[in-house]
Amino acid sequence: MTKDIFKGLALLLFVSCVSGSLQAQTVAKHLKSNDKQLLEEYVQFLAIPNVSTDTVNIRRNADFIVEMMKRKGIEAELLSGITAGVTPAVFGEIKTPGATKSIGFYAHYDGQPVNPKQWHEGLKPFEPVLITAPLENGGKIIGPYKKGGEINQEWRISGRGAADDKAGVMAILNAYDALVKTGRKLNVNIKFLFEGEEEVGSIHLDEIFKRNKQKLQADCWVIIDGPRHVSGRKTIVYGVRGDVNMALTVYGAKRPLHSGNYGNWAPNPALKLAHLLSSMKDENGKVLINGFYDDIIPLTASEKKALSQIPDQDALLKKELGVHTPESPDRSLIEGIMLPTLNINGMQSANVGPLASNVIPTKAEAMLDLRLVKGNDYKNQAEKVIAHIKGEGYHVINGEPTEEERSKYPNLIRIELKHGYNAQRTPMDLPIAQSIQTAVQSTTKEPLVLIPSMGGSLPLYLFEEILGSKVIAVPIVNYDNNQHAENENVKINYLWEGIETIAAIMQIR
Amino acid sequence: MTKDIFKGLALLLFVSCVSGSLQAQTVAKHLKSNDKQLLEEYVQFLAIPNVSTDTVNIRRNADFIVEMMKRKGIEAELLSGITAGVTPAVFGEIKTPGATKSIGFYAHYDGQPVNPKQWHEGLKPFEPVLITAPLENGGKIIGPYKKGGEINQEWRISGRGAADDKAGVMAILNAYDALVKTGRKLNVNIKFLFEGEEEVGSIHLDEIFKRNKQKLQADCWVIIDGPRHVSGRKTIVYGVRGDVNMALTVYGAKRPLHSGNYGNWAPNPALKLAHLLSSMKDENGKVLINGFYDDIIPLTASEKKALSQIPDQDALLKKELGVHTPESPDRSLIEGIMLPTLNINGMQSANVGPLASNVIPTKAEAMLDLRLVKGNDYKNQAEKVIAHIKGEGYHVINGEPTEEERSKYPNLIRIELKHGYNAQRTPMDLPIAQSIQTAVQSTTKEPLVLIPSMGGSLPLYLFEEILGSKVIAVPIVNYDNNQHAENENVKINYLWEGIETIAAIMQIR
Repeated sequence: MTKDIFKGLALLLFVSCVSGSLQAQTVAKHLKSNDKQLLEEYVQFLAIPNVSTDTVNIRRNADFIVEMMKRKGIEAELLSGITAGVTPAVFGEIKTPGATKSIGFYAHYDGQPVNPKQWHEGLKPFEPVLITAPLENGGKIIGPYKKGGEINQEWRISGRGAADDKAGVMAILNAYDALVKTGRKLNVNIKFLFEGEEEVGSIHLDEIFKRNKQKLQADCWVIIDGPRHVSGRKTIVYGVRGDVNMALTVYGAKRPLHSGNYGNWAPNPALKLAHLLSSMKDENGKVLINGFYDDIIPLTASEKKALSQIPDQDALLKKELGVHTPESPDRSLIEGIMLPTLNINGMQSANVGPLASNVIPTKAEAMLDLRLVKGNDYKNQAEKVIAHIKGEGYHVINGEPTEEERSKYPNLIRIELKHGYNAQRTPMDLPIAQSIQTAVQSTTKEPLVLIPSMGGSLPLYLFEEILGSKVIAVPIVNYDNNQHAENENVKINYLWEGIETIAAIMQIR
Repeated sequence: MTKDIFKGLALLLFVSCVSGSLQAQTVAKHLKSNDKQLLEEYVQFLAIPNVSTDTVNIRRNADFIVEMMKRKGIEAELLSGITAGVTPAVFGEIKTPGATKSIGFYAHYDGQPVNPKQWHEGLKPFEPVLITAPLENGGKIIGPYKKGGEINQEWRISGRGAADDKAGVMAILNAYDALVKTGRKLNVNIKFLFEGEEEVGSIHLDEIFKRNKQKLQADCWVIIDGPRHVSGRKTIVYGVRGDVNMALTVYGAKRPLHSGNYGNWAPNPALKLAHLLSSMKDENGKVLINGFYDDIIPLTASEKKALSQIPDQDALLKKELGVHTPESPDRSLIEGIMLPTLNINGMQSANVGPLASNVIPTKAEAMLDLRLVKGNDYKNQAEKVIAHIKGEGYHVINGEPTEEERSKYPNLIRIELKHGYNAQRTPMDLPIAQSIQTAVQSTTKEPLVLIPSMGGSLPLYLFEEILGSKVIAVPIVNYDNNQHAENENVKINYLWEGIETIAAIMQIR
């Protein structure tokens, strides 16, 4: 019994360190007592493969979420788009008697593609394990979470989606559940929306919105996605960058040629691609494409002020990421985020390493990623890149080159424009924005980090344009989560703190 | 019986078309009567995987060759190097009573690495099949060769090594066999050498030569490797380019980063590599590295004359390969071959296609191939490239970057210099060179193509330097064989004509 008193004291100490208000402390205490069950359910969720294009498994994820919601007393339904066979979004709603406001919570359950070979030995995308720290920083693998097993708050769970963005689904549902279990009263209606196509550009979200407009109406949608600030402080993000990807393929000879027999004669598509990419962006990170930085809507005074108060993170990041000099040496990370980007996500021509052979490749490919800021139109921005490529002497084609095209043009490039969308930014001074800020601040003693726009992209403009709702993002996961890449992971204490944050927002008036 | 007479007439007609002298006709007739057995043995040989680094299967190839030699009455032995565990070369010798000269015949039985995914549907590297023509040009798959099955001379055999260079082993052994079976007398001693490490740079050939110097002595070694001239004419090559590969890895941040959250801040190694490669070679194929074209020993008058008589192949090649403009628009293929090259064999950073994700990659790799001409030293040539890279602001490392290196240098590159060797060129006017030319000419009515140096590389300088032998290459396979790449293939009539050519050389005095 004495032992239990100590345990209680230790718990109270733990709770008061991380949480601000008494409300938040109650939720934190509930989480601490139920952490084993929460983790157990979460690793089951992570074990279901969730690559967006894997429609069979994606549907299994949706069904799992419906079950989770039922267990928590939330009635759930699948919302489909207009197009047949669209991956459904999962919707749920809690109607609060007498409430005049509705707050929606959004997360996505699909994940980026995985190349299991690139994951660290012992880590597999869809076999979640506990790790003490990132393995590349000397972390150790604890193993799969066993029912009832001890949990260290500092450990992480590794697996695709662990951070981006099954963490969002998990935290939203458990925040509601914690409020119910601890007997807290709600003042607003709560809506839940979990999307399954975010990582392929939310290609049907507009259809789902149009078809379910009434159901999805809310005063504000709160997006639970992305990482908290590098400083570790709780973070609110008022905007996101837009995004569009372009796949480029430059062609050489029709068949791979012996680099001895044809070297100095056959055009090398890898070199051509290198020249083309070099022409797009200089060695100091400046994009050289005509008009690339035009159209940008400047920040407001409040946004500029918030920007100036964001803690400096560059020194820490440089050290942790092993970066000697950032791409643009005179610009901070946060300043760079307020500008559009042109990045190479991937590049390939024939093979390197043990598979390399002495050939002149037939083609060279690059995937470009254009991030957009408020004011940019994604189609226009891509058109500027295409105009630049044409200016470099390329004839643009839509498929593999035909005989005629080969005989007619010295430089052929295939350009596939992927689905894209524009940036979005909500004014920080709106009353609903202020309420959310107060709620999040109530869960922590440290000042919040308020970011006018985050670097990542979500199709948030749809919430404004179709639903007429405001939209604000509250990211909850650790910044070093390897989101979109191999060895993705989430810190367990960030999950618990995320739940506390969301529970506080759910209680606004 | 009448049918047989017609068959005999048709055969004679066939023989007289492709072969010049009566000697050659006898061999051709023998081949025609035995084509089924020859092909049957060859497809068995091709079915043994032969990637140079696959030591278990490489040894199976060596054992198969020993068996082939035994069946043809040639005593065979495995020659090893000084280093333990070196892939053996297969050696054999026929001593001719009263002969004062020795002619050696060399081929290699190992092949370039394979990436089965890159092969055309229905083709597998080590499951040889007959095809009517290259599949990319509308050819059809006939299927595996079945014992006793009909053979169309225009068909091809597809599989790794079919052209490069099991064709050499097959043609040499069957040339000798054809002479024995048709009762032809030899005037010189014949030596056979089949190497198993050619495609990894003949890394132990020097050891094998040093250890077996007496055994391998010959007046001239005839190298059976590489393709005949594009015109289809029979070809003699008096020299080869040297070769050295360099693997480059440019580094970005320690872990893959979300291209939204870190775009415009984290250095992108793919872009850095693009800039670096662009700085090495301009858009007209001119290498920009300091001193790259120095050290070249000019061609002699006979070599220049031979060069001027080589049939123009560029127009045909452009059409067939779908090349609108060669790398250097004002230079012919053969002129380019007389110069050193810098080619990108492969390039990779993160992923493209369905595996692409929105990351800033951690590294970008390129494999460079430097071909060398007479006068270049391969180490010097590589040093010029390294000096250029340093001049572009890179710090060169030998392994993965350490924390200290990351904190100290803005640009890190790992350079792995692969094993290389220098070019070689035998004067065309030497008596032995003249004898071989006469022998090859006796098998065809068309003028030969005499090439001072071919584009490809073989470590032929070792024959001169260690064995003190002259060395001349007689390539036998079709030029469009996809050597070193996917869908490698050899035309069946080129195999038969190759055997005829070699049989004629074996009969010189």
